[in-house]
Amino acid sequence: MKLNCDLGESFGSWQMGLDDDVMPHIDMANIACGFHAGDADVIARTLTLAKQHGVTIGAHPSYPDLQGFGRRSMALSHSEIINTLRYQIAALDGMALSAGLSLSYVKPHGALYNDMMSKPLVFDAVLDAIAGFYKPLKLMILATADQQHFSNVAAEKGVDLLFEAFADRRYTDDGQLTPRSQSGAVLHGVKLLTQVAQLVKQGTVTTDSGKQLALKADTLCVHGDNKAAIAQIQQIRALLG
Amino acid sequence: MKLNCDLGESFGSWQMGLDDDVMPHIDMANIACGFHAGDADVIARTLTLAKQHGVTIGAHPSYPDLQGFGRRSMALSHSEIINTLRYQIAALDGMALSAGLSLSYVKPHGALYNDMMSKPLVFDAVLDAIAGFYKPLKLMILATADQQHFSNVAAEKGVDLLFEAFADRRYTDDGQLTPRSQSGAVLHGVKLLTQVAQLVKQGTVTTDSGKQLALKADTLCVHGDNKAAIAQIQQIRALLG
Amino acid sequence: MKLNCDLGESFGSWQMGLDDDVMPHIDMANIACGFHAGDADVIARTLTLAKQHGVTIGAHPSYPDLQGFGRRSMALSHSEIINTLRYQIAALDGMALSAGLSLSYVKPHGALYNDMMSKPLVFDAVLDAIAGFYKPLKLMILATADQQHFSNVAAEKGVDLLFEAFADRRYTDDGQLTPRSQSGAVLHGVKLLTQVAQLVKQGTVTTDSGKQLALKADTLCVHGDNKAAIAQIQQIRALLG
Amino acid sequence: MKLNCDLGESFGSWQMGLDDDVMPHIDMANIACGFHAGDADVIARTLTLAKQHGVTIGAHPSYPDLQGFGRRSMALSHSEIINTLRYQIAALDGMALSAGLSLSYVKPHGALYNDMMSKPLVFDAVLDAIAGFYKPLKLMILATADQQHFSNVAAEKGVDLLFEAFADRRYTDDGQLTPRSQSGAVLHGVKLLTQVAQLVKQGTVTTDSGKQLALKADTLCVHGDNKAAIAQIQQIRALLG
Repeated sequence: MKLNCDLGESFGSWQMGLDDDVMPHIDMANIACGFHAGDADVIARTLTLAKQHGVTIGAHPSYPDLQGFGRRSMALSHSEIINTLRYQIAALDGMALSAGLSLSYVKPHGALYNDMMSKPLVFDAVLDAIAGFYKPLKLMILATADQQHFSNVAAEKGVDLLFEAFADRRYTDDGQLTPRSQSGAVLHGVKLLTQVAQLVKQGTVTTDSGKQLALKADTLCVHGDNKAAIAQIQQIRALLG
Repeated sequence: MKLNCDLGESFGSWQMGLDDDVMPHIDMANIACGFHAGDADVIARTLTLAKQHGVTIGAHPSYPDLQGFGRRSMALSHSEIINTLRYQIAALDGMALSAGLSLSYVKPHGALYNDMMSKPLVFDAVLDAIAGFYKPLKLMILATADQQHFSNVAAEKGVDLLFEAFADRRYTDDGQLTPRSQSGAVLHGVKLLTQVAQLVKQGTVTTDSGKQLALKADTLCVHGDNKAAIAQIQQIRALLG
Repeated sequence: MKLNCDLGESFGSWQMGLDDDVMPHIDMANIACGFHAGDADVIARTLTLAKQHGVTIGAHPSYPDLQGFGRRSMALSHSEIINTLRYQIAALDGMALSAGLSLSYVKPHGALYNDMMSKPLVFDAVLDAIAGFYKPLKLMILATADQQHFSNVAAEKGVDLLFEAFADRRYTDDGQLTPRSQSGAVLHGVKLLTQVAQLVKQGTVTTDSGKQLALKADTLCVHGDNKAAIAQIQQIRALLG
Repeated sequence: MKLNCDLGESFGSWQMGLDDDVMPHIDMANIACGFHAGDADVIARTLTLAKQHGVTIGAHPSYPDLQGFGRRSMALSHSEIINTLRYQIAALDGMALSAGLSLSYVKPHGALYNDMMSKPLVFDAVLDAIAGFYKPLKLMILATADQQHFSNVAAEKGVDLLFEAFADRRYTDDGQLTPRSQSGAVLHGVKLLTQVAQLVKQGTVTTDSGKQLALKADTLCVHGDNKAAIAQIQQIRALLG
């Protein structure tokens, strides 16, 4: 079970995330490409850090919305999604190759990630963006109750998927993340570690209604926002052995 | 003698340049990378057009200044120039590869081009950006009286240069372009064709003071702004045979 | 019946619209505020032109999306809509006052305009933005079959509305614009002038199903994109007498 | 002796500065206008905070360079400086009026501030921007050895100046700030408080060569970057009584 984390989300003079602290503890770095966060200088620093720690890198592209941090859905057309994704992935890819690294996967960010999971047309455009990229890249999406369906659709386009689960989020019965607005939606401490252990050993999570839901996850999404989050990653890492 | 032209300089809903009309007549397309002009959709269209006409493609990166069209000098640091250039070149490169094309060279745009010619530190940063790019790309600069000096500096970094001359601009004795503010700085019709013929046959231009100046140019820069410019390109093409 | 037109939609080096040609023929200029088009220099030029021709000016604010020309819906929160509108309106207002002009109204642009008409929460946020602006400004919206409802909602917030009709667009029975994708949706020549005459004399339009629909319009929206559009405005002006 | 501080320099999801902590201790808030930092939402929050603490507000406009935080000089023309300043000042002014506040002054930011002090043409453009604004605003600049000269130039344009001194920066003999790259350039603790006391009581600073330099300062620039900076402001405030 690999740990993935969103990184390189500083911009210009603004810092975000403890990238130096989190990089040693993760396996996969989802690197912002400049459209919701990150800029060419931040990307260069993040690539250097990833290389130093031997971390696998992925592109973390977004809707073009710096002010909104890519969290506001935007009504892009099919070809606009394809082109904006290719531009962002390509920018990171060429910088990575120049830093002696090679890009492995793509994980859309924020509202684009949510839209990809909930709107088939957006998922289709994301697949086309990756299927037509000049080299094969995997697409990371959310492991849900109907993840087989997503796999089938992606396979038709020739795109391999990576499924991620969330260590710190409670799930609904249909395998969606329980909205943060609901109490108990975000897990901490023992509850979080229990969910991780269950996912790894049994391949299930206990949903907010108490059911056992099977989720096949290739990777766990963790966060590096602050010192507490870093400590949490270390606990998860210790648990995974 | 190859003809090169700046292309892909539309942005969003704004059109600029008669790309469809000029592409059939040129050898090398300098494609805007999104920082002074162009966006992912414009780039995709421009690449399709270049492929259709078998035109060699180069990156045309800029200072980050859409409003100023990259024509306003900006005080970027050495590493900022390197990173912003690599980001832009990489974005175009990956989109080109995905379109079945391969990038051959880099021609900086506007104020960055001028700064590169007049400020050794900027030229040095541009060379470093290209020298450290993951694959070899040539750098296109202005052919001037001291072009050998530029070649020597570039050779130390392992970068090959392409020298361009301007068909439609009068030159000063030191091989700079006569400022547009001076009368006679921009050539038209017979004068333009005479300068092209002289460049090709004798490797010289007649400067604004009447001297013969040797310029070794690999390529001529032409423009595709309007119908008259297209006609001019066709005349140059006919002259070159 | 006043004629209003979107103006000041150039950006940086990119020109859009024949502002010089259209300004003499209109009554109200909806001036772009820099978020979908326009920049501080374009605004300054447009204000000078409006002053020269004694044209009433309004703000034409947008979602923050230059590349998409404000035509892509964005999921902004209530307070984000309020603040982005106030910022844009204020920027134009202060520049107008400095040019000796005074802003009279606000007409949202593109996707924001459409969202305002179709989503009550967006309309509510737009009203709040204007109701809380430091001076009274009218809000221009589309005249539809249920325009009284919009008037009532706006009145509760203390905002006066201006209703616009489209000279060149066919209407559906519920007073929406027939989508451009349908044949006959855009009117030209005699049909256009007939619709204008009917609107002015009888206060109705003939819908795409042939019904008579009452529309109380304060102003007609016209376009200044090209020479043909300018000629059309002159014909409408002649008709209005 | 008033205390002024740069505020509202967060952007989107990125936080910068402890605005909540510093606002209670200052007299004048220089509020970012969205071109180097700040956005419409940040501005709205900052205005609310300034109003709550009865702090005088000024506009803190910049070159248009979010990534560079306005710290990179840009070659703008005379009219471009005028228009970009008016746009930014106007945006803040209208939002301030809508929040029940009134703008008092303008303090250019970063590279624009430095260029204004070192390049007469830039100072001239800044003065024109303010002189032609629809209402009188003072311009805050650096108190230097030749501050009378700046006053004279500004008076010709009808602009009143506010001079600021730096509590925490050593001065050169000609009244410039000693570059941060030199040791001892930044003052802390007792040295800082000594400089403040001397400025207030004697109207002089002791330069890096040991000379007494007369500086007539209307206001002291302080910083709110972190907890230590807030403590420093409180010590200065205590000293001023």
